[in-house]
Amino acid sequence: MRRCVKLVRLAIGCTSPNPMVGCVIVKDGKIVGEGFNPKAGQPHAEVFALRDAGDLAENATAYVSLEPCDMEGLHRVTEALIKAKARKVVVGMVDSSPIVASKGVDRLRAAGIVVTAGVEEALCKKLNEAYTHQMLTGKPLLALRYSISLNGQVSDHPGEGAIDSGGYYSKLPQEYDAVILSSTYLHDKPSLPTSQEPSAKQPLRIAIARSSNATLEVPGLTTGSEVESKASLVGVETVISDQITMNAILDYCTRPGLCSVLLDYTGNTDDLEELVKESFEQNMLQKIAVEILPLWCGRDDRNARFPLNTEEVSKMKSLQPKIYNQSIILEGHL
Amino acid sequence: MRRCVKLVRLAIGCTSPNPMVGCVIVKDGKIVGEGFNPKAGQPHAEVFALRDAGDLAENATAYVSLEPCDMEGLHRVTEALIKAKARKVVVGMVDSSPIVASKGVDRLRAAGIVVTAGVEEALCKKLNEAYTHQMLTGKPLLALRYSISLNGQVSDHPGEGAIDSGGYYSKLPQEYDAVILSSTYLHDKPSLPTSQEPSAKQPLRIAIARSSNATLEVPGLTTGSEVESKASLVGVETVISDQITMNAILDYCTRPGLCSVLLDYTGNTDDLEELVKESFEQNMLQKIAVEILPLWCGRDDRNARFPLNTEEVSKMKSLQPKIYNQSIILEGHL
Repeated sequence: MRRCVKLVRLAIGCTSPNPMVGCVIVKDGKIVGEGFNPKAGQPHAEVFALRDAGDLAENATAYVSLEPCDMEGLHRVTEALIKAKARKVVVGMVDSSPIVASKGVDRLRAAGIVVTAGVEEALCKKLNEAYTHQMLTGKPLLALRYSISLNGQVSDHPGEGAIDSGGYYSKLPQEYDAVILSSTYLHDKPSLPTSQEPSAKQPLRIAIARSSNATLEVPGLTTGSEVESKASLVGVETVISDQITMNAILDYCTRPGLCSVLLDYTGNTDDLEELVKESFEQNMLQKIAVEILPLWCGRDDRNARFPLNTEEVSKMKSLQPKIYNQSIILEGHL
Repeated sequence: MRRCVKLVRLAIGCTSPNPMVGCVIVKDGKIVGEGFNPKAGQPHAEVFALRDAGDLAENATAYVSLEPCDMEGLHRVTEALIKAKARKVVVGMVDSSPIVASKGVDRLRAAGIVVTAGVEEALCKKLNEAYTHQMLTGKPLLALRYSISLNGQVSDHPGEGAIDSGGYYSKLPQEYDAVILSSTYLHDKPSLPTSQEPSAKQPLRIAIARSSNATLEVPGLTTGSEVESKASLVGVETVISDQITMNAILDYCTRPGLCSVLLDYTGNTDDLEELVKESFEQNMLQKIAVEILPLWCGRDDRNARFPLNTEEVSKMKSLQPKIYNQSIILEGHL
């Protein structure tokens, strides 16, 4: 099952709104086939693994990180497993979609295949936490990111090496379907935050311009003018709202089927402060990713806005340090 | 040499003002003797290891984390190695004390013993960084500790499990010869911060009371009155100074031969804020240990004082996350 999870990681950020799935086929203690679903719309992991195994799939055991799909159509994976005469199927997690949950397992059992479910379940669930959250709540998973100095000052600048390929600020955007940014942040930058990973799928960027006469400059697209004038630009959709709330943004993201949204909090951000507070106070936030910069910052009015206090104390259920290149990131769940 | 370092760790906090040393004696590829210096005033590591090895020390190789001492007197370790007829001595680091540096190595070589110096030197130096700093600069090593929330608020309270045995706030005090505390912090507490580790040597506690009419309540000793009245209490030395500066405190600590001082920054600390700034701005600080609490704090005036800004940005040479029980600590050097 761990091998399945390794395979799945090859598809990070590519499968949304579908879940990420890995499959390994084992016969007589040897791996005879492997696969993962590379992209929404393409065949599922099991199909690739069965093709890889060929005739060896007969009487073999298939390990799948997610319950095989039993939806009618091209990608009916249960049918493929039955046709290949697999003897046993080991499932990481049962699908959290209310439409398909347990149907795949039931169908395999009805065909005489031995099914074991819930093996390394926590690990498999973590892989698809955004998909699972979306299935259970109907809204995208929301995460907050920022960089903070050792003396508690938020910084506009991710640490050294973070934006380069392999750096965390290059890896993070590809894990989310959309990134919320401040228009004031965009104003200063030569380009939109972009994942530098090979063949990365870039997230949808949502730029927030709070006041009615805010200018919205999108690097590479405009040279700066009023918000209203942007509606006609290719690649830019302008939404004007009297009240910018996180609730409204998540609702908006639900329509195109986005599973995960990252609120990228960078300094001097009147635009985002209220959204952060709302996210905490209305329990809309599921994850937090904090980069701890190896700096003790000096006096700087731009940074004076942090700490961002909320009404109540929020406690992380888990907080773990991770190291990407030179960056230290603390990741926690609420 | 790594085995030496492991042995040394058994004596953390017990040897100051002497360095920590470990010794392993190897003959024909087997360890035949081990030792470490358990406490200032007791025989040195090599003597324990030679006793352990007995006659097997002849023609053996001795691995020592620090250059053997050649000072005249009871603890002249070079003499003991020569008498035991060791063939080879491998030294982790040459002694940084200007009085004894390289003398031990020279004496061993003059007696015909093969000496290799600088093996795993960085690791050995790290063990005795306070001793080395004190020897090179004449002042104790200064470190700063505090707990901070994910939104950059300093907290009076170390995280869950931190003060219990095995927790970082129990382990940290025994690594320092003295701990600087705020008198306002002591006011609220039932006891002085104390290491709960088995047979821990408790550090000297230095309580700072800044204003002339500050009350200084030492838990377990007094019930609160004027600073002046404390001079006669057993176990309490009162120093009254017009100007409390870090420079003056470190000078004061140099006299009893203290090698390391921890500035324990806890919230609501008028007493300590200037000391922190001075430490950064005068480059007096060598280390920082920051506990990152898994909390997003709410509004609280007591905590509003952080971030503590300095004139300049200070950058850590190294910053590494460490996990003790449930606590996440970032440790860095300046």
